[in-house]
Amino acid sequence: MAALTGRDLLTLADLTADELQELLQLAAQLKSGELNIRCNKVLGLLFYKASTRTRVSFSVAMYQLGGQVIDLNPNVTQVSRGEPVEDTARVLDRYLDILAIRTFEQQQLETFAHYAQIPVINALTDLGHPCQILADLLTIQECFGRLSDLTLTYLGDGNNVAHSLLLGCAMVGMNVRIATPSEYKPDSTIVEKSRAIAANKIEITITEDPVTAAKDADILYTDVWASMGQESEASARIPLFQPYQINEELLSIAKKQAIVLHCLPAHRGEEITHEVMEGSQSRIWDQAENRMHAQKALLASLLGAD
Amino acid sequence: MAALTGRDLLTLADLTADELQELLQLAAQLKSGELNIRCNKVLGLLFYKASTRTRVSFSVAMYQLGGQVIDLNPNVTQVSRGEPVEDTARVLDRYLDILAIRTFEQQQLETFAHYAQIPVINALTDLGHPCQILADLLTIQECFGRLSDLTLTYLGDGNNVAHSLLLGCAMVGMNVRIATPSEYKPDSTIVEKSRAIAANKIEITITEDPVTAAKDADILYTDVWASMGQESEASARIPLFQPYQINEELLSIAKKQAIVLHCLPAHRGEEITHEVMEGSQSRIWDQAENRMHAQKALLASLLGAD
Amino acid sequence: MAALTGRDLLTLADLTADELQELLQLAAQLKSGELNIRCNKVLGLLFYKASTRTRVSFSVAMYQLGGQVIDLNPNVTQVSRGEPVEDTARVLDRYLDILAIRTFEQQQLETFAHYAQIPVINALTDLGHPCQILADLLTIQECFGRLSDLTLTYLGDGNNVAHSLLLGCAMVGMNVRIATPSEYKPDSTIVEKSRAIAANKIEITITEDPVTAAKDADILYTDVWASMGQESEASARIPLFQPYQINEELLSIAKKQAIVLHCLPAHRGEEITHEVMEGSQSRIWDQAENRMHAQKALLASLLGAD
Repeated sequence: MAALTGRDLLTLADLTADELQELLQLAAQLKSGELNIRCNKVLGLLFYKASTRTRVSFSVAMYQLGGQVIDLNPNVTQVSRGEPVEDTARVLDRYLDILAIRTFEQQQLETFAHYAQIPVINALTDLGHPCQILADLLTIQECFGRLSDLTLTYLGDGNNVAHSLLLGCAMVGMNVRIATPSEYKPDSTIVEKSRAIAANKIEITITEDPVTAAKDADILYTDVWASMGQESEASARIPLFQPYQINEELLSIAKKQAIVLHCLPAHRGEEITHEVMEGSQSRIWDQAENRMHAQKALLASLLGAD
Repeated sequence: MAALTGRDLLTLADLTADELQELLQLAAQLKSGELNIRCNKVLGLLFYKASTRTRVSFSVAMYQLGGQVIDLNPNVTQVSRGEPVEDTARVLDRYLDILAIRTFEQQQLETFAHYAQIPVINALTDLGHPCQILADLLTIQECFGRLSDLTLTYLGDGNNVAHSLLLGCAMVGMNVRIATPSEYKPDSTIVEKSRAIAANKIEITITEDPVTAAKDADILYTDVWASMGQESEASARIPLFQPYQINEELLSIAKKQAIVLHCLPAHRGEEITHEVMEGSQSRIWDQAENRMHAQKALLASLLGAD
Repeated sequence: MAALTGRDLLTLADLTADELQELLQLAAQLKSGELNIRCNKVLGLLFYKASTRTRVSFSVAMYQLGGQVIDLNPNVTQVSRGEPVEDTARVLDRYLDILAIRTFEQQQLETFAHYAQIPVINALTDLGHPCQILADLLTIQECFGRLSDLTLTYLGDGNNVAHSLLLGCAMVGMNVRIATPSEYKPDSTIVEKSRAIAANKIEITITEDPVTAAKDADILYTDVWASMGQESEASARIPLFQPYQINEELLSIAKKQAIVLHCLPAHRGEEITHEVMEGSQSRIWDQAENRMHAQKALLASLLGAD
């Protein structure tokens, strides 16, 4: 494959459609054991927000590549003492081989990437969650054997996951429908960008109607209604989001072979029912596992390892 | 040895007496360097309570096996955001090869073990501390060259350490006496289970009298009077527990070659005097070191490594 | 080289002048790739204060040596529960191969070193910062090709960095000038010790006059005016320290080829201006990188690895 050596992944749009497909293929080969890549490098994890899946899946991915991981919890670093990002970035650049950052503002991530010459990975910002979508597409590929001629419906909050799904689906040629309350639509710039990438080859639908959106979909996808830092808004949000819950009724509208995805953690009884989550159409645990395989491919590719 | 591949260790009673003996033998072989086991696996440490010895000894054990460790401090994971244990367990199961948990309720540990297919290790619960007892038995074996025909006297709080000592001594054929204030007796279910395992081959004594208990004992053993989370009760507990202090007077009642053990951290002047702790009969530092060797054997065995 | 196998580095004065030079040479050889050292050991990092550079540079150094690192954050260890240092030190000694400690009192570091037989490294105390000075001297050697016949001027607070610079410069034969407000002079015991080491072969100047100190200097060096734990004093300190700021005017007094060093984190506009920090004479990022190379040499030498 064409390695992405030395590049950053700040948004899915940093990749061409071909590069995205090659990355997914590499992930599948690493998962199957067909390919075995080793690199003796050090990954830094700079996470300004709590994380289980992202932290553990990145760490295990790096360990399985033969590398090492340093957990740069801001609580125990100078970052918390007000050192400018420019300085922290340049110093970490001298020590680490690659850096994954989970933070709030996309701008902070970009500043890090500007000042650090090593590859920088978006491990979640308010704007996007590209690593999650790599795992999602890998899961869909495994289930359906293809990424085109499918329709993915995302229901709930038009957040970072919705944004990266829009871009990712546009890049791989999958129809995508985003159903949210009117106040929680995805960012219009991202929607426009996705339409530009899709170039009319797929349908991109932004709607407030969960039923129309779910009709004949191949994939139903949701996320928590109140993400980290929004917990105080949760009670106000719940009534607004209730119609977007993935439950057995809504699932019955989708295709018979439809699968259900959720990027976790889940709040059962809110965005998804216990029955659907534990039901036969859920691929949620495979999807979680695929975080590791997708990120292993990403790390190997950005590090130029083979 | 018969590897314990893929099994859990939630209590010592999860092992047969033969398996326990084989595990101790493996630990001795790993410590002496007679055997060298390598496994390229990842251990997760999920600790809901502070820890020095357990965390460091597990980590070094895993590193010496050639593996890796991820510290899953609940403060920095989604676990603290109220994700159900069932979900966390299933996700971690997809990333990790083995998981050691330190928590309060045995039930929570069992839920983890139920939902995770990988081996789960009890790294301390309110009910038991099997890893500590593996180290204790290894230490006793080193000192006396045998585990049978010996008497171990535990003095103080009838806590998780006392529980696991009861089970462990019963399994290896060592007489065990537990001397506690009447309000702090060990759990009667555990005592009954130990008697059932011992099948009248050894003496199991539960008493309030420290002097009778210490008489002619081969091993005197104690633990802090107020464990983590019980610090507020400490001042009320001290007068009740004072007669159970291991001091030179009580030690003089035991056999002349008796050894003193303590699972640490110690509160000098409370459950043990400075003189005894630093005296010639103390094997406390060897006992601490043996945490690492015993756990290395346990990890290798549960992982099926050789 | 004469390895420092099994020894501690609690202060630079624990080394002879020859040993210091050999350590710097080893660091240069490791940095250039001329030498490649592997050791399968475990480093413990016990840091009572926040750290980015020190923690990451030690970790990467150890990983590049093929070793492992355990982060012993006191917040998650028994150390925070009041276990005596003597006990913690003896237990860690049984698990770890080498231990780096960042703490406040030099006495606590010495107690650790007394009770632990493994090598103990001062990773910053109120009294000294020897690892920083190893990196500084490596940087100066790279820039000037020599360490003698040079003059280093340190401006600002007569703190731990100033102390270790005094000792280090005396050991390698570099003239050293420390310019501080009168209330913030370096510890007189350290100054006397440095003079004894220097034995009149170099000039050691303690002054309140930044201009005289900077005149014709080869190296201008500064540190934050208020270190960790002194933030509340910052506003009172600023007016006193203002004349000691490294700015373009002060830099113009130094030699034309002078370099500027700062041990970071920096407070632009206080001890150093943005222009100087980002200017052509700054070697601050190389200096930061050299923390890793210098500490790698130190770890390898204390561990007796080759």
